[in-house]
Amino acid sequence: MPILEILDYAGVAVFAVTGALSASRKQLDIIGYVFLASVTGIGGGTLRDVILGATPVFWVTNPIYLLVCTAAGIAVFLSAHLMHSRYRLLVWLDAVGLSAYCVMGAAKGLEATGSPAVAMVTGMLTATFGGVLRDLLAGEPSVLLRPEIYVTAALVGSGMFTGATALGAPLIVASAIGILAAFLVRGGALRYGWTLPTGRAGPGRHPDDVM
Amino acid sequence: MPILEILDYAGVAVFAVTGALSASRKQLDIIGYVFLASVTGIGGGTLRDVILGATPVFWVTNPIYLLVCTAAGIAVFLSAHLMHSRYRLLVWLDAVGLSAYCVMGAAKGLEATGSPAVAMVTGMLTATFGGVLRDLLAGEPSVLLRPEIYVTAALVGSGMFTGATALGAPLIVASAIGILAAFLVRGGALRYGWTLPTGRAGPGRHPDDVM
Amino acid sequence: MPILEILDYAGVAVFAVTGALSASRKQLDIIGYVFLASVTGIGGGTLRDVILGATPVFWVTNPIYLLVCTAAGIAVFLSAHLMHSRYRLLVWLDAVGLSAYCVMGAAKGLEATGSPAVAMVTGMLTATFGGVLRDLLAGEPSVLLRPEIYVTAALVGSGMFTGATALGAPLIVASAIGILAAFLVRGGALRYGWTLPTGRAGPGRHPDDVM
Repeated sequence: MPILEILDYAGVAVFAVTGALSASRKQLDIIGYVFLASVTGIGGGTLRDVILGATPVFWVTNPIYLLVCTAAGIAVFLSAHLMHSRYRLLVWLDAVGLSAYCVMGAAKGLEATGSPAVAMVTGMLTATFGGVLRDLLAGEPSVLLRPEIYVTAALVGSGMFTGATALGAPLIVASAIGILAAFLVRGGALRYGWTLPTGRAGPGRHPDDVM
Repeated sequence: MPILEILDYAGVAVFAVTGALSASRKQLDIIGYVFLASVTGIGGGTLRDVILGATPVFWVTNPIYLLVCTAAGIAVFLSAHLMHSRYRLLVWLDAVGLSAYCVMGAAKGLEATGSPAVAMVTGMLTATFGGVLRDLLAGEPSVLLRPEIYVTAALVGSGMFTGATALGAPLIVASAIGILAAFLVRGGALRYGWTLPTGRAGPGRHPDDVM
Repeated sequence: MPILEILDYAGVAVFAVTGALSASRKQLDIIGYVFLASVTGIGGGTLRDVILGATPVFWVTNPIYLLVCTAAGIAVFLSAHLMHSRYRLLVWLDAVGLSAYCVMGAAKGLEATGSPAVAMVTGMLTATFGGVLRDLLAGEPSVLLRPEIYVTAALVGSGMFTGATALGAPLIVASAIGILAAFLVRGGALRYGWTLPTGRAGPGRHPDDVM
């Protein structure tokens, strides 16, 4: 199986598990698990395909992805009570999914347009959009707004992949470099609380106090 | 007028009314009613068309849908003060819209791909996405996260439609079966509080207590 | 440079600045500024292109837009601490972006379909969607739900543009009329608190009190 296809299945599967873990945190029923697993698992790739005009999107032309999401939802439904901390597992799996998907999104963007700038953005957007959607639908505080490095990791991964490809690295090497770079950055942020400096301005006031 | 077109108008109209009822709950002006009516009415079908690559989307090629949404918004603006409980009306109309749209989405997905799995998912997604969008934009607690059966009803409806079609039922019979099944399940959930069992794990802690 | 291209860059740039201001209010890091700047800057136009089937979307075929968003994000990161009220600046720039984008969206919709009704809706949706997305992702109260006139301004602008075009006005004149009209309406709403009457029904109860 080609490397990009493996990455795609891996990204879908782990994001699907994070969606199901969110469903568990919200005490939904089994269909709720499968629904959030599916939306999270296929959300990023769907956005990528729609932006690039690669429609019908990937899971319409290959419904195996839907089976993967369904299986992930059911597996979490049956086992979530065994987990000590679902949120911690959620963010670590989200880190794995983000690492796989930033390379996958960059590769598809590069293939479709040849532009490294577009590749970095499609990589970043598709790696983060599944999680954004999951948090919005589940009513969780968005992982985007947490202080630890998040979007940066996706950008580093898609940037390293795009750079390595531009330097002539074979697909499998460039992919490995991109995935590892993204995971090291995001994993370090989770483990050691890595942050980048915020701007020098303080927090915003409530809109009603300003208008 | 063919059955699928009737379903499409019906789904758009009732979802538009639910969007306008949300606008009324938030005390928006008449343009706010029309805006939320339009987004809710055409949101699910727009997602369906974009995913399947059927662009320009349905309401661009046939702007009558926009008139339907506008009329629904104005009608609710003029009459909402007469209603005893807008939220109760909203969820019951949402149930009607969901029933029409899960069949409509499944039919379009089946026609475009021939895959029953894809049909069930396009049915489920398009039936629920209008309401998800409405709740997000209006800042209401998402109907997805309420305990009563919701997504399941859309899945039952699109599954019964897809199954009946696979067994050779004529379009109008399969549609009627799918719509009735979805409405019975969702209506029963609203009337009798039907739920499916939730997982065995407890509610999630706040992310800040976990990280 | 043709007038529509100028409008497009202007709309993207000012929306990008509003996204970066939101990032500043949430004390994100520099990548967070660039991310929210990009999503807000290109969000409305992306939705427009996807709905019309004009894919790959505009910033994939012309990545200069991404450089504009990145520059806007960095500029705000470096200067936000100098601003007295970021939220006030945000809503005024949002008004500029909305005025440029309602004309731009209407022009593209008219060109693609020839339908004035579709043009008004694509104008309205694309002018408001960037801000909606920004507020959702940043967890801010949606500008849609504030009492002052908002969607109405976009509708007036795209309506005036569409009407002037139908009456035979040259593109540059119709554009100027549309932009001015939208900005006068939205600016008046911000400066003088203009509102339209809300419906006669009171605010909604909490769903849990109704079900």
